[in-house]
Amino acid sequence: MAANSSDRPVLEELDRAECLRLIAGGSVGRVAFDDGEGPTVVPVNYSVDGDAVIFRTSVAGRLNRSLLTVVAGGEVRAAFEVDRFDESSRQGWSVLLRGGAHPLTEAEIGRVAQVEPWPGGERDAWFRLAAREVSGRRVHRP
Amino acid sequence: MAANSSDRPVLEELDRAECLRLIAGGSVGRVAFDDGEGPTVVPVNYSVDGDAVIFRTSVAGRLNRSLLTVVAGGEVRAAFEVDRFDESSRQGWSVLLRGGAHPLTEAEIGRVAQVEPWPGGERDAWFRLAAREVSGRRVHRP
Repeated sequence: MAANSSDRPVLEELDRAECLRLIAGGSVGRVAFDDGEGPTVVPVNYSVDGDAVIFRTSVAGRLNRSLLTVVAGGEVRAAFEVDRFDESSRQGWSVLLRGGAHPLTEAEIGRVAQVEPWPGGERDAWFRLAAREVSGRRVHRP
Repeated sequence: MAANSSDRPVLEELDRAECLRLIAGGSVGRVAFDDGEGPTVVPVNYSVDGDAVIFRTSVAGRLNRSLLTVVAGGEVRAAFEVDRFDESSRQGWSVLLRGGAHPLTEAEIGRVAQVEPWPGGERDAWFRLAAREVSGRRVHRP
């Protein structure tokens, strides 16, 4: 039988519980934020802390400077994406958290899920992004 | 010898040529944009067309509506991220393109690198993001 569009993977929406289960292990995610020159996105190591993700970045880096500048004592709108796709089967999933990110104080850092960055070097700026909205999709063959 | 920070992967900046080489094969990337409720990011299939990336999305979807709304005949600031990370070795790379995205006309679609989306279903909104800025980083053990 010839391949046709019905052989292709389909998109399925995932519920919040499934999304949080998929990303629970931590690893690499991507923070989307506005650095003053428009939307941008950078990969970071993260861990999950309830309905929030915790991530670390360099104090001197652009992510920290952007988030701190915009935050000004409050929180800044940001999104956090985690996905896992398999090239050969063309299947996988993605999860998106949207909400406010805020920097963690030293006291708070001691109370949240710990994050171990892959690269060496200073990663002393910690952030928590609380998910107001959690969505996800799976691409799979029916 | 005990593990210490010098055993950890290091970050290396990649030049523009290396970045474009890494993403040349196409596959899955992530578009960051502002949908009016702050920055967000969604995975899409893409191909590379010179210094630009081409991606497709659903006409009815949020990505298309957001980009079209903001574009208003011009282009909208967006970012495009591609990465490949290996969990076990904790190594990998990421490439970021920043610039303006604009919708393609039918005539333009015929002239650019083609994109085959993984999932079935309508993906009739085509966009081109021209990279004004290309940057990338590799995480690797020295």
